[in-house]
Amino acid sequence: MNPVQLIRKKRDRGSLSRAELQDLIGAYVRGELPDYQMSAFLMAVYFSGMEAEESAAFTEIMLHSGETVDLSSVPGVKVDKHSTGGVGDKVSLILAPMVAACGVPVPMISGRGLGHTGGTLDKLESIPGFRTDLSIEEYRRVLGETGLVMIGQTAEIAPADRKMYALRDVTGTVECIPLIAGSIMSKKLAEGIDALVLDVKTGSGAFMQSEERAVALARTLVQIGTKFGKRTIAFITEMDQPLGCAIGNWLEVEESVECLRGKNVPDLMEVTLVLGGAMVFLGGKAASITEGIGLCHSAIWSGRAYEKFLQIVARQGGDPGIFADPSRYPRPRYSVEVRSATPGTIVRFDTMEIGVLAVELGAGRRKLDDSVDPKAGIVLRKKLGEPVAPGEVLAVFQTDRGEMLATAEQQLKQYIHVGDGPSAVPPRIRSLVDERGVAPWRTPEVF
Amino acid sequence: MNPVQLIRKKRDRGSLSRAELQDLIGAYVRGELPDYQMSAFLMAVYFSGMEAEESAAFTEIMLHSGETVDLSSVPGVKVDKHSTGGVGDKVSLILAPMVAACGVPVPMISGRGLGHTGGTLDKLESIPGFRTDLSIEEYRRVLGETGLVMIGQTAEIAPADRKMYALRDVTGTVECIPLIAGSIMSKKLAEGIDALVLDVKTGSGAFMQSEERAVALARTLVQIGTKFGKRTIAFITEMDQPLGCAIGNWLEVEESVECLRGKNVPDLMEVTLVLGGAMVFLGGKAASITEGIGLCHSAIWSGRAYEKFLQIVARQGGDPGIFADPSRYPRPRYSVEVRSATPGTIVRFDTMEIGVLAVELGAGRRKLDDSVDPKAGIVLRKKLGEPVAPGEVLAVFQTDRGEMLATAEQQLKQYIHVGDGPSAVPPRIRSLVDERGVAPWRTPEVF
Repeated sequence: MNPVQLIRKKRDRGSLSRAELQDLIGAYVRGELPDYQMSAFLMAVYFSGMEAEESAAFTEIMLHSGETVDLSSVPGVKVDKHSTGGVGDKVSLILAPMVAACGVPVPMISGRGLGHTGGTLDKLESIPGFRTDLSIEEYRRVLGETGLVMIGQTAEIAPADRKMYALRDVTGTVECIPLIAGSIMSKKLAEGIDALVLDVKTGSGAFMQSEERAVALARTLVQIGTKFGKRTIAFITEMDQPLGCAIGNWLEVEESVECLRGKNVPDLMEVTLVLGGAMVFLGGKAASITEGIGLCHSAIWSGRAYEKFLQIVARQGGDPGIFADPSRYPRPRYSVEVRSATPGTIVRFDTMEIGVLAVELGAGRRKLDDSVDPKAGIVLRKKLGEPVAPGEVLAVFQTDRGEMLATAEQQLKQYIHVGDGPSAVPPRIRSLVDERGVAPWRTPEVF
Repeated sequence: MNPVQLIRKKRDRGSLSRAELQDLIGAYVRGELPDYQMSAFLMAVYFSGMEAEESAAFTEIMLHSGETVDLSSVPGVKVDKHSTGGVGDKVSLILAPMVAACGVPVPMISGRGLGHTGGTLDKLESIPGFRTDLSIEEYRRVLGETGLVMIGQTAEIAPADRKMYALRDVTGTVECIPLIAGSIMSKKLAEGIDALVLDVKTGSGAFMQSEERAVALARTLVQIGTKFGKRTIAFITEMDQPLGCAIGNWLEVEESVECLRGKNVPDLMEVTLVLGGAMVFLGGKAASITEGIGLCHSAIWSGRAYEKFLQIVARQGGDPGIFADPSRYPRPRYSVEVRSATPGTIVRFDTMEIGVLAVELGAGRRKLDDSVDPKAGIVLRKKLGEPVAPGEVLAVFQTDRGEMLATAEQQLKQYIHVGDGPSAVPPRIRSLVDERGVAPWRTPEVF
């Protein structure tokens, strides 16, 4: 292999063969190809793209750089969900027990927060005692026993992706559809799933800010999933405002528990029920997504979803008692209300900036080895389109960082735009993408 | 400085400020910015380009990463020539003493061969005893004494370029106009010149294969030179066949000496005289390029150019006696004639492939630390448009590498295309580019 020739080929808009990609990535994982050649290659991919065949081969090579889990000993159609990441996106915490309560096994491997977005793993770990570092053997066992398991990526899964993702993060090559698709799908395919539901975010708080790019990513993801024989459905969902009200790890767990106990936070629950409905449909427990949504709603309404949640918390070492007595949870040093100076309507959120602010309050990492403050975060009291009286509270933020108080208050005020008249609330779920193409989505009125 | 933000800005087609470029390149030279971020940045520049201001700032930062030579103690307008590199391009060996013989001081700092092209430094070093590793002090002294000096790049000059060029070579980012321009001009501006003539090659043996790209590079080079107050003229010259007949270090020295003694190798001497004429014009010794060409021709015809050549060889430690008795030079182990199977006309050369073959015969390096065999190379017996009888010799190659003989003969036969009828010989000099723009060039009939 001549790596310079392969870089030049991609640079000149050529398509690399499976063997060429294997040579390149194999050498990189073995430490024989230096980072500086891989980063030049990744930037060339950013500009030149990849063809469908190439993208699938790339994913397969990343997938086979590590172990793949065999879940055939667990009965049922195993279905997972993946989101491209947003602000306040706590869907997995509600969805996974809800779908498992419908009888569909959910093997979920999640990531940590990075950039302005949160990560399911950090949220789970804010539950006292909850263990996410299960071995593959334990992962399989817990799934078999409870129909649900929620862990972090293990060292055995897709090591090529882990190495390459760290490089992309520091070389400006994150926002590239074939690289994102390969990274997501190699990890998901390694989990042992049979089918996959994807939540591709678009809007001011998403990595793919334009809907066009989000649809292109969704198409690529579905194409790859289908090629690997996994039924895959993607939804394009709106991230023009944080999802639900809470942003921050323990705050999001609390909001999720409220929803599992039956509270309707409209945007959060619409996305959760639709994604869940699609999972139940793909898991063979409903004849349509609409029927699946109905079953999910029953799982919440009956309390079975919350029971399943408490069961998995206990099974993975967490303390379910904390939810009966949340006052035992540590309190943040500071809790500050942010009030509106003017009357009006909430017309816009600077969602990404709000995500970054939450990170700075302690809810996320600026560097990979930072530690996270589970108590830190923001709770919105107003959502898009809601009226605001002068002096009314727009949001509350919590932090232990006294030096942040003044700037955080000022910034948060600036990121929540109060304007004139009613603002149009965008549809929360824009479209559905499956192997047949893109179709507009309208959530059925089933509840 | 956040390097990822700068990489992303360039990736998104933004223009970097002087301060941003300074931060980035400064950190790279100090070893604080890792190669993998610089290579991602360079690939982003490959795709996004640079604006004129940015390109000039980039060049200036590279220039000031090291020392700049002050030649103000040497009287006269100092003029150098630079070529973008070709096969059989021995122009400098004839040109430098010829222009110096016209009274224009020529301070020439040259590079080694890389890729399929030769380098003046390797050619000079094939002369027994010739020293190219002069200090800056010696460089200035020799120029003052003889009106001419020919050395290699020293460690003090443009260290940022040296580090960056080595990285570009292994990351597929060589063929990029702003990077090429910055690399060439930072080194040339550091030499202490007052004016510069550029030979930008186009055609099958050039880095810029299309004339359009060659003109774009020439324009950028002239723009930068002008911005730095150096009069700069570029010629777009043809590299659809090797220049002259010899390819290989000592073989090219021999051909150059023949030309200095008055032999007319038409394509080689046309390019040499026109570039030299422009240097004499810029050096203030002629009122026009045409008059400069006439003066150069006289310098050859009178023997003064050859005298100057022998003088500089002796002054830089070489043995001028070798040219009186070339049989003292070591002979190659093998010398093979390649004959045509069919009659016809020479219609095409695969020039780049011929350059690569010469490297493989020993005339160049495959890696930077390879050593070069000065005797190895190829001598063409036929040039474009010349008739060929069956069994006639097309070329001779020389090497010490016995294992190369069979394949080299077969390849060389394949790279020299014999076809039907007379072929049109392309004009050797296509156009002239100066600060006023591009103008077609027709060589005046002055000799």
